[in-house]
Amino acid sequence: MSLGQLLSAPPAVVAAGVDVFSASLRAQGAEVTDVDWRPPGFGDPADLAALVLDPRRATANRTAVERVLAAGSVLTDVRPAREVLRLADRTILHAGPPIDWADASGPLRGGLIGATLFEGWASTVEEAERLLAAGEIALDPCHHHSAVGPMAGITSPSMWMWCLEDPVQGGKAYCNLNEGLGKVLRMGAFNEEVLTRLGWMRDVLGPVLAQAVRSMAEPLDVKAVLAQMLQMGDEGHNRNRAGSLMALRELSPAVVGVDAPSSDVAAVLRFIGGNEHFFLNLGMPTAKLAMDAARDVPGSTMVTVMARNGTEFGIQTAGTGDRWFTGPAQTPVGLFLGDYGPDDANPDIGDSAIMETYGVGGFSMAAAPAIVRFVGGTVPDALATTERMYQLTLTENPAMAIPILGFRGSPTGIDVVSVARTGWLPQINTGMAGRVAGTGQVGAGLVQPPRECFEQALAALAQEARAA
Amino acid sequence: MSLGQLLSAPPAVVAAGVDVFSASLRAQGAEVTDVDWRPPGFGDPADLAALVLDPRRATANRTAVERVLAAGSVLTDVRPAREVLRLADRTILHAGPPIDWADASGPLRGGLIGATLFEGWASTVEEAERLLAAGEIALDPCHHHSAVGPMAGITSPSMWMWCLEDPVQGGKAYCNLNEGLGKVLRMGAFNEEVLTRLGWMRDVLGPVLAQAVRSMAEPLDVKAVLAQMLQMGDEGHNRNRAGSLMALRELSPAVVGVDAPSSDVAAVLRFIGGNEHFFLNLGMPTAKLAMDAARDVPGSTMVTVMARNGTEFGIQTAGTGDRWFTGPAQTPVGLFLGDYGPDDANPDIGDSAIMETYGVGGFSMAAAPAIVRFVGGTVPDALATTERMYQLTLTENPAMAIPILGFRGSPTGIDVVSVARTGWLPQINTGMAGRVAGTGQVGAGLVQPPRECFEQALAALAQEARAA
Repeated sequence: MSLGQLLSAPPAVVAAGVDVFSASLRAQGAEVTDVDWRPPGFGDPADLAALVLDPRRATANRTAVERVLAAGSVLTDVRPAREVLRLADRTILHAGPPIDWADASGPLRGGLIGATLFEGWASTVEEAERLLAAGEIALDPCHHHSAVGPMAGITSPSMWMWCLEDPVQGGKAYCNLNEGLGKVLRMGAFNEEVLTRLGWMRDVLGPVLAQAVRSMAEPLDVKAVLAQMLQMGDEGHNRNRAGSLMALRELSPAVVGVDAPSSDVAAVLRFIGGNEHFFLNLGMPTAKLAMDAARDVPGSTMVTVMARNGTEFGIQTAGTGDRWFTGPAQTPVGLFLGDYGPDDANPDIGDSAIMETYGVGGFSMAAAPAIVRFVGGTVPDALATTERMYQLTLTENPAMAIPILGFRGSPTGIDVVSVARTGWLPQINTGMAGRVAGTGQVGAGLVQPPRECFEQALAALAQEARAA
Repeated sequence: MSLGQLLSAPPAVVAAGVDVFSASLRAQGAEVTDVDWRPPGFGDPADLAALVLDPRRATANRTAVERVLAAGSVLTDVRPAREVLRLADRTILHAGPPIDWADASGPLRGGLIGATLFEGWASTVEEAERLLAAGEIALDPCHHHSAVGPMAGITSPSMWMWCLEDPVQGGKAYCNLNEGLGKVLRMGAFNEEVLTRLGWMRDVLGPVLAQAVRSMAEPLDVKAVLAQMLQMGDEGHNRNRAGSLMALRELSPAVVGVDAPSSDVAAVLRFIGGNEHFFLNLGMPTAKLAMDAARDVPGSTMVTVMARNGTEFGIQTAGTGDRWFTGPAQTPVGLFLGDYGPDDANPDIGDSAIMETYGVGGFSMAAAPAIVRFVGGTVPDALATTERMYQLTLTENPAMAIPILGFRGSPTGIDVVSVARTGWLPQINTGMAGRVAGTGQVGAGLVQPPRECFEQALAALAQEARAA
């Protein structure tokens, strides 16, 4: 058919998918042929139908996102984990859903060994491994203690915790202090360098920060810092440069006023100033506060947790409380440090996907185009990722505005139903730990949850909807 | 004519402008009608021809941009102006091309009155005005002393200066310390608050920074900070948030080590941390070092200075040395603070357009989309501005990469010939001072140089080319 014919004859319309288009065309007198086609999604159609027809869902999801958007986050204290978390004796917290030593991957084992040595529960690596394998040291997820931890998420009683509160809804959340990059406990390293640094953090950094934070006339508004970061090329997960600088700016006058040797004060300022990820451990509990505010909203299909233990990826939803839906953790694809390559990378690990759950991190990569130099991909990919995440989410967070998108709010509140319908999975950017215990960081990259998490969540939400 | 006819008949081609297109079409056997049309540019065609045909120009411009790109910038010292600038007694430096008291606008007069009081040369405003009007205090451009100053650029002997050096080509450049926003001398305010702050800067801030900078094991690499800023949503002229934070990070450990009362140390950290434009006075001499490196390259049509004194806008070029080409300063259009409006704004003022001369600031607004909330316009405008500036410039600066443009280098080295040919003027973003002396800042906005500067420069360059 020539161009001329195309324009001179009435159009023939074939409509696929949503029938509102064909109905509208028919109403205008056009001939329409309907094709029974759906985009590639997943999930039992009966489950999807049960959720779409659940009269509670719209209101429940509105309630959930309102709580997420309303949540604030201020820094109220810095205290040892043993004081602020409900930790039984000889317990170590870790990232992701529950796991045993037997199933733990290299970096999680490395972190557990390091914490066991750091706490003085063992004096050799072999002894630590024996205790851990024998179950004489209890393991528990950070998320079960209102806490989050990046990468292995290893949190033991002597570690100092940032203590954050949501001044609007009253929640509390905790995260330990960031060690920096390279050979660090959270990446599974546990050599002398790691343990020496952890000792300094316990004996100098923690006490200085505690004194400083307690002396501040106004508590640090961590949510406001996170919002500013999106205006400054950070996305809050793998770029925390501006955030770490702002934290330094806010803390440094109080740090200088601390009653401590000036060499300690200078060392603390150098340590914070030398760590571009220092803010991450403040950002994560900020996201945790927001998502925990939406915990337990019956009928809501919003995701409240995405977290990985290095073996499994787990999610929780607002409608299903503390129940985990898990699947095998994928291995990130990205850029490697030094001579490391894809074979060195452990599967996905860390509670830091709480950032994406909150709508920043990988979801807001459009705000941080320079991150592609750290996690891989191209600038157009970063923009397209954020655009795509709007299709999976329930709302836009006006507090987290993305300048390059004309200050559009970040895509926030992952909807299990939207994930199943589109078949698209949330995009996470993440650090990569070496798969062999003791290695440390090998790179950073991009990763998605396994579809299984969402399939199980969908089925459970549907079952709950039918029972309601 | 229908679509079908359009595609079935041979095309009729009308070519406007550059004849390479019509020649190429004719070579392919097409019928071409030439129209005698040129894009809206300016300048005497004979002058343009003299420059385009000048055999020195390509090499000279290459030399000029190579020097600009090669220039480094490190912070070597902080010293009083009287020690480092060649200042005669009772001399005050100001922004822009030379000007007398009689022609000075409100904010320049305000700044001169304030500096005269600050130096103790007069004890009342009236006395200061009388001395200035009588010519008993000499005025001289900052640019004549290897210095630059934002807004009124007022620099008097007791002010402390950042001392920067280009470690590659050996140049030196100077700038005083930034006072913050609002009621400040550089915006023409001179009340008690302003003079008290200047006194504290002279007695506390300057000495503390001098000790700190001299104690640093490695001098601060200011160019590297500026490059990082473009990755963090700053463009280096009206957004210096990330840069100011990085300066704080680099300086704070040394500041803490200074032999001064801890209350002074904390006050210095608070002052720096509370001023988002603190870095501007380090960025400007960095740009000045680069542009001065390209001073005096016979045959080069590259702009080395754009500067405004609040009455006139002046430019200099690499091919014409220290000669100023001036025209009336325009009034910026933008956003106003509080109740101020367009009638309160003084015409364009300040040496800070050295940032655009170097290819950042307004030229790199694509790197800083959030700036539209400060200077006005939209995010697409910011992107389009940078794209347009590539048409006026000789090179791209790989050290100043713009992430959102796929890390393309900033548009650098304004070519007088390209400005004349396109008729497009450089885009500057700028603070706005109140036009009444004593007011202070009233807003921030966008502004362009008057075309006259470029018309004069073009004629002078052409005359020089003919004489060569």
